[in-house]
Amino acid sequence: MLTTHPFEDDTLHEECGVFGVSGSDSAAALVALGLHALQHRGQEAAGISSFDGHHFHTHRAMGHVAGNFDRDDVIRALPGTSAVGHVRYSTTGETALRNVQPLYADLSTGGFAVAHNGNISNAMKLRRELVRRGSIFQSTSDTETIIHLVATSNYRTLLDRFIDALKQIEGAYSLVVMTPEGMIACRDPLGIRPLVMGKLDGAVIFASETVALDVCGATFERQVEPGELVIVQGTEVRSIRPFAPMAPRPCIFEWVYFSRPDSIAGDQSVYTVRKAIGAQLAIESPVEADYVIPVPDSGVPAAIGYAQESGIPFELGIIRSHYVGRTFIQPGDKVRHLGVKLKHNANRALIEGKRIILVDDSIVRGTTSLKIVQMMRDAGAAEVHMRIASPPTRHSCFYGVDTPERAKLLAAKHDVGGMTDFIHADSLSFVSIDGLYKALGEAKRADVRPKYCDACFTGDYPTTLTDHDDVAEVDQFAMLEERVN
Amino acid sequence: MLTTHPFEDDTLHEECGVFGVSGSDSAAALVALGLHALQHRGQEAAGISSFDGHHFHTHRAMGHVAGNFDRDDVIRALPGTSAVGHVRYSTTGETALRNVQPLYADLSTGGFAVAHNGNISNAMKLRRELVRRGSIFQSTSDTETIIHLVATSNYRTLLDRFIDALKQIEGAYSLVVMTPEGMIACRDPLGIRPLVMGKLDGAVIFASETVALDVCGATFERQVEPGELVIVQGTEVRSIRPFAPMAPRPCIFEWVYFSRPDSIAGDQSVYTVRKAIGAQLAIESPVEADYVIPVPDSGVPAAIGYAQESGIPFELGIIRSHYVGRTFIQPGDKVRHLGVKLKHNANRALIEGKRIILVDDSIVRGTTSLKIVQMMRDAGAAEVHMRIASPPTRHSCFYGVDTPERAKLLAAKHDVGGMTDFIHADSLSFVSIDGLYKALGEAKRADVRPKYCDACFTGDYPTTLTDHDDVAEVDQFAMLEERVN
Amino acid sequence: MLTTHPFEDDTLHEECGVFGVSGSDSAAALVALGLHALQHRGQEAAGISSFDGHHFHTHRAMGHVAGNFDRDDVIRALPGTSAVGHVRYSTTGETALRNVQPLYADLSTGGFAVAHNGNISNAMKLRRELVRRGSIFQSTSDTETIIHLVATSNYRTLLDRFIDALKQIEGAYSLVVMTPEGMIACRDPLGIRPLVMGKLDGAVIFASETVALDVCGATFERQVEPGELVIVQGTEVRSIRPFAPMAPRPCIFEWVYFSRPDSIAGDQSVYTVRKAIGAQLAIESPVEADYVIPVPDSGVPAAIGYAQESGIPFELGIIRSHYVGRTFIQPGDKVRHLGVKLKHNANRALIEGKRIILVDDSIVRGTTSLKIVQMMRDAGAAEVHMRIASPPTRHSCFYGVDTPERAKLLAAKHDVGGMTDFIHADSLSFVSIDGLYKALGEAKRADVRPKYCDACFTGDYPTTLTDHDDVAEVDQFAMLEERVN
Amino acid sequence: MLTTHPFEDDTLHEECGVFGVSGSDSAAALVALGLHALQHRGQEAAGISSFDGHHFHTHRAMGHVAGNFDRDDVIRALPGTSAVGHVRYSTTGETALRNVQPLYADLSTGGFAVAHNGNISNAMKLRRELVRRGSIFQSTSDTETIIHLVATSNYRTLLDRFIDALKQIEGAYSLVVMTPEGMIACRDPLGIRPLVMGKLDGAVIFASETVALDVCGATFERQVEPGELVIVQGTEVRSIRPFAPMAPRPCIFEWVYFSRPDSIAGDQSVYTVRKAIGAQLAIESPVEADYVIPVPDSGVPAAIGYAQESGIPFELGIIRSHYVGRTFIQPGDKVRHLGVKLKHNANRALIEGKRIILVDDSIVRGTTSLKIVQMMRDAGAAEVHMRIASPPTRHSCFYGVDTPERAKLLAAKHDVGGMTDFIHADSLSFVSIDGLYKALGEAKRADVRPKYCDACFTGDYPTTLTDHDDVAEVDQFAMLEERVN
Repeated sequence: MLTTHPFEDDTLHEECGVFGVSGSDSAAALVALGLHALQHRGQEAAGISSFDGHHFHTHRAMGHVAGNFDRDDVIRALPGTSAVGHVRYSTTGETALRNVQPLYADLSTGGFAVAHNGNISNAMKLRRELVRRGSIFQSTSDTETIIHLVATSNYRTLLDRFIDALKQIEGAYSLVVMTPEGMIACRDPLGIRPLVMGKLDGAVIFASETVALDVCGATFERQVEPGELVIVQGTEVRSIRPFAPMAPRPCIFEWVYFSRPDSIAGDQSVYTVRKAIGAQLAIESPVEADYVIPVPDSGVPAAIGYAQESGIPFELGIIRSHYVGRTFIQPGDKVRHLGVKLKHNANRALIEGKRIILVDDSIVRGTTSLKIVQMMRDAGAAEVHMRIASPPTRHSCFYGVDTPERAKLLAAKHDVGGMTDFIHADSLSFVSIDGLYKALGEAKRADVRPKYCDACFTGDYPTTLTDHDDVAEVDQFAMLEERVN
Repeated sequence: MLTTHPFEDDTLHEECGVFGVSGSDSAAALVALGLHALQHRGQEAAGISSFDGHHFHTHRAMGHVAGNFDRDDVIRALPGTSAVGHVRYSTTGETALRNVQPLYADLSTGGFAVAHNGNISNAMKLRRELVRRGSIFQSTSDTETIIHLVATSNYRTLLDRFIDALKQIEGAYSLVVMTPEGMIACRDPLGIRPLVMGKLDGAVIFASETVALDVCGATFERQVEPGELVIVQGTEVRSIRPFAPMAPRPCIFEWVYFSRPDSIAGDQSVYTVRKAIGAQLAIESPVEADYVIPVPDSGVPAAIGYAQESGIPFELGIIRSHYVGRTFIQPGDKVRHLGVKLKHNANRALIEGKRIILVDDSIVRGTTSLKIVQMMRDAGAAEVHMRIASPPTRHSCFYGVDTPERAKLLAAKHDVGGMTDFIHADSLSFVSIDGLYKALGEAKRADVRPKYCDACFTGDYPTTLTDHDDVAEVDQFAMLEERVN
Repeated sequence: MLTTHPFEDDTLHEECGVFGVSGSDSAAALVALGLHALQHRGQEAAGISSFDGHHFHTHRAMGHVAGNFDRDDVIRALPGTSAVGHVRYSTTGETALRNVQPLYADLSTGGFAVAHNGNISNAMKLRRELVRRGSIFQSTSDTETIIHLVATSNYRTLLDRFIDALKQIEGAYSLVVMTPEGMIACRDPLGIRPLVMGKLDGAVIFASETVALDVCGATFERQVEPGELVIVQGTEVRSIRPFAPMAPRPCIFEWVYFSRPDSIAGDQSVYTVRKAIGAQLAIESPVEADYVIPVPDSGVPAAIGYAQESGIPFELGIIRSHYVGRTFIQPGDKVRHLGVKLKHNANRALIEGKRIILVDDSIVRGTTSLKIVQMMRDAGAAEVHMRIASPPTRHSCFYGVDTPERAKLLAAKHDVGGMTDFIHADSLSFVSIDGLYKALGEAKRADVRPKYCDACFTGDYPTTLTDHDDVAEVDQFAMLEERVN
Repeated sequence: MLTTHPFEDDTLHEECGVFGVSGSDSAAALVALGLHALQHRGQEAAGISSFDGHHFHTHRAMGHVAGNFDRDDVIRALPGTSAVGHVRYSTTGETALRNVQPLYADLSTGGFAVAHNGNISNAMKLRRELVRRGSIFQSTSDTETIIHLVATSNYRTLLDRFIDALKQIEGAYSLVVMTPEGMIACRDPLGIRPLVMGKLDGAVIFASETVALDVCGATFERQVEPGELVIVQGTEVRSIRPFAPMAPRPCIFEWVYFSRPDSIAGDQSVYTVRKAIGAQLAIESPVEADYVIPVPDSGVPAAIGYAQESGIPFELGIIRSHYVGRTFIQPGDKVRHLGVKLKHNANRALIEGKRIILVDDSIVRGTTSLKIVQMMRDAGAAEVHMRIASPPTRHSCFYGVDTPERAKLLAAKHDVGGMTDFIHADSLSFVSIDGLYKALGEAKRADVRPKYCDACFTGDYPTTLTDHDDVAEVDQFAMLEERVN
């Protein structure tokens, strides 16, 4: 059953994971394994396309990889030695399945399957122009824009057409493309979204995170560099850099929250960085207390770092049910509220009468923090001090992360004092932006060309944002607020 | 779950039914009712699109109209005063749902939904050219070609673009198109496939057959004429004839088999024509016997005609289970064979020791006839005489009817004597081609520009067949064979 | 998912079909075929149990045999050389699947699977007593009572226990029982419900109707006699008659409507009997008219009989869609009403300006007749004469046929004049009860011990009706009414 | 679809959770919430029965509570102020749904719904006797035995019948029973399985663990005592103790693994006990190392205890995917193996070149430990020391815990040296049985009447085991082995 409401989903933002295998007899099975390891990057839907030398095969499903792509019949229906896959967060409405990636099209150059992590920030403008010239879109996904640009390019070879398309798009994109001629992996010139490359018995593998290489037994070779196209044809691997070189700006939130702690992002252990942020937080914002308690599970490494630095014991004061997913990733405000109640329970026997430090990775709307502080008080906590392992999240992301509109971000509405009141904590501190860069091995955030995209904290967007006319205004507002702090 | 095998389905032929309503508060519900009445024209899938003044809504499903489109929630999800629907025969493979109509696209002129009965005989050639210029196809349906021609037309208004598209296509098409500007119904210049127009409380209705008007309580106004476009905008109904006038050639098989007996096709009662064919058959091919027995259910009217003309009693000698569909319409040879065994049972108490005349509408592969003759003999019939209410089917249809390739048509391989042997009948006769025209009120088949498309009997195709290079050769073969008779 | 509402379904009546095979390698497949041929006896649910020499296997499903029991995996999961099956009409509510037969229990004597056509008219009383003594019922089916009687019998052998159980029950039952020791088929002492026996390559087959033997290629051996138990153990077939002999009273409605026309019931062709009823009706209630028109499909044989006797041409004036089931058999008043509109359409071109005789098998509530008469008038019929091939249905059935409560039977509320007014016909006649017996080869209905159960027409119930205290009163009402005629 | 293979599932053992609410308008919704909090006690299936004052309503489903019992329509279909629920582990085969609890029966005393945690160790013997006397079982569950004992009891009142039944069964049982007269909660005389009682706004609640009370906002009142029946009728709560008093023997494994760390079991915090076991382990089996690393998630509290006692830093060296369940609880050896690979990944950046102490709760087959040690070595660990927070598991449980047969328990086949070799660790130690009792506040395990059931460690079964004739032999083998240590 398909019900089409054209353009009902006018937001094209999502956070995703991609995985590609070229040159393995178990290509689709490896992709399934890799996507399972990337499940935290997108729980709403998943898809795999394979190429058997003659035909492309695609299977897409709403829901988790497990239950959909761990079935023999599904994997058998995806034959071939090349395959690409995608996990996706939050496709709403009944148009959902059309938006699930990999997207596929029959071009005059042959089949073309693409998996995309990121967001094209001029997709709307390009789309309007393409439709005017006669292109027909099947989905509301920004990724489809890339395909139509390739299809209608005046160049002759697929590679020239693809580069022609990339040069017209702006924003963040880590892409894995599968064609009859081979597999192409590429990252936008700023390298905003991650993409790594691995090897397994002669097969070449691309993945959003190294953890996906680990899980399928592959070795981590290197990152795909910002602005680089890696082309795999049979056993040959070539590299092309069609863009003018730019200082990279990888998304700093990968270390704060997105990536799994057992991943290596940009050559740094995510776990180690998170512990370092926690330690930095203990230095910047110490407080006397009985226990350091992580908000599970994402707050655990920073809490361990805080506990080790401060000497205050690390304890499990909040028990998380193992039968529900991560807090941040459930769509819909209502579900999120219900989720908090069911997912976390106070370890009352431990908490009662104690002064506790709660460590969490970030505050978005603040509703979760409010409930957790309340839960600690209900369990008898004498004092509740909240420590956040990132700076205040004040700005929307336009590079593929599903953030709420600015008006719903707690830090866009309140200074830290107001936020402390809102969540009813005895104290609240965030790590400083310079502290965050320190945990990543920098002396501080550079005023010009900082090493990361930290726009969600600073409003300093590294690209133009053609589809988002309101951003200038947003930035002003941000500046205003930041002066208040 | 969607699995895409591009081009796995390289045959674009089907027999279908279309239905459209403009100007009713119950548009989608009426379309559901109308499609149910047209279910015999396509049992494999159905779809309805509605337009609510702002958005298009589409629901498609594999299977019957009943069970899919008689549910309140489905109809409620199809709001608006305009709606078009489609029933479709035989979409194989897992690409199925993408091929189910109405097809929908967002064009620069707005939404465009189309339901098509017929077959575009140069669709392949047009498609190759469109893909070369950058169009991306979502389906393997020939109908999508029309949409891309509209999308890429150089004309400005939708109507001009649509006419531009029609002028590029050849073959058979009865189309109902729904756009924000109104509904357009049209028929190809030869009027090969049927399309009628009705009224119900101010709403305008288009349908493949009059029976669909009856079932929803509408009055039959007139046929949409060959080569005519009827445009409905609000309460205004306009007619355009953009093609050079041609002598119409409606498909004669509508009277032989496709249309329901209670339909009026081309101003003639289908039931009355079928009875007249039976009577003509009794005149052309009399035989002494005890009973006239119809092959149920499609042979019944001709059998009544034969019985009334010959004076031999009409009896039910074959009982048909009511829990399976029509013989001809089930896809897959294997199912068809199994189907015959389960669907028909001899009324042994009646048959035993009797000479019987079996009346059927047509012989395609001959396997069904073989089994039914054998079933009569097993039940003790003394003699079995087969009478067929159409001439021998010797040629494939390229105008939207799913006929097997020529090599599988019994009449393309054998003369009547050979066919009699093949089905093990005591005698076998077909109505003559002139007899068939007589039953339709003509003196005989005109040698030049006969009044109907009878290519399946004569090989006389009324259009060029661009995608079918082998047809010339086929025709020669047909001539050869026909001389043999 | 199961939701249990104990006793929500306080009516235990249904019309069913049973089929059993002993001694075939394809036992379950043959049962599936047989049940498909008996589908008209119960469309709501079906089930098959097989015994492989060690274990019993059961599969039950809501819906038709086709789609559920024509799948290879289902049949493969039903191994063994013995199998019994059941089709069932109208199990309402979500307790449905527990009531679908064959019912199965592990008794101390081993497994016990039973398929039952009929109704135990003291089941409620027996059930209350069994529950009092500690039996736990799984279903609301009267058939389960039989199993508990067997389970708690004081006799030692299964056969003695089974006969002990049968002697405690009253009403109508044709049973096929499968145990590790063999298969038992039996019919109640009056033989109210049918049961026949056939052979196929050494296998013994039991079926509700001969048509099910035909369809699977078996030969019809004989009826299971009223009061007879046929026991099949390996290749041995024994017969036991544990009841005092009684004059049989088979249900006369099997010839009127239930059985398929191609069945032989009680050694008479159902088709021939129906034609004879139609002829008798033409003699008893002649009328001048242009056409004899059957209400399809059940009225067709009687209409042919009427036409042949009267000399008035038989014509198809009502066209029935082939994609819906029989009128009588759909549960729920609302569906039935909707059904009529969609299922039948007037052949307007034929009807217009003509005087017609409509022939139908029976009138239950009268709502269908009312609509069909109106449909004929809307199509322009000059006169509409209704002829019914059974006497007025004035009484509920307590022997396994789902009849509405008396208050809803049209003939229980009106005399024939009132009924004529109700359905708006120009005239209405029923065949007389003696005429019905004549069509069955009798001189007339015997006043004492008539040869059939005709309680639905006469109120003359051949058994006591322990669970139905209100019947005496009902019968008085019947007598009263019958005097009015 | 139901396929019945009688007795195919001859093992009646399972670990489960129960939850009951009496006197709340949201009874079923509270039960759903409570079952969700108890999901770790049984992931395979769940069920809820409610009583609305007139009727019982039951919904059962395979799979988790979330997804099945968080839907409005399901909860609305379970009306009434009383409800009981059950989560269940490992019902194999297609008979599954019949075994899902609560079980329900219509008795002569009215409806009877029961949810059971535990295992009746003479269920087989009782069942054979009940079947001999005519009882018909619907399921293979030992719980159904209780219902038939109640149904066939010679006592008059339901309470007397229920006590009569309890006196005939042996083994472990925590039961919540719902009848039209009220709710009964009871625990076997030894209190082997847990059951607690809480209050919420006047409603009385029973649950397997206190965490389920927390989650739905109820207050913890007290344990249901071993051998106690608590009867709730309206607002009245009564207590009955029909058994001779015995020294309780609650299952010690609840503190080791089963209960959630945030539960209070037998008045002790499960989290605190687990930390104390870890600390005791550090005292009993110290080793020089760089990190203490928990096997997530069940090993975390003991690892924190070990780290705090030893002063060695606690670190996350193994990252667990959040999208799969607990290790122990997945049925099927094959799934378990696959599960380990996908669920845990080494935090390579941390582990490389380090000496690590792995802390886990228990070793069953040893296959998981083997893989985790190997994973640590593959990640470059210099030394891997395994510390287990329970004594060696040498004996099967017959009280409702699904343990493999003895021959598959690693500790039943090897001494600790052999186990160390098997898992390829540098060292392996288990906490001593006395150390375990110490962590629970005892001086040591008492030789006579120890305070807990620790049969899985010691083979000292506190009840007779009627259905398990092989146990004596098993115990001898156990003794033999224990001498080897």
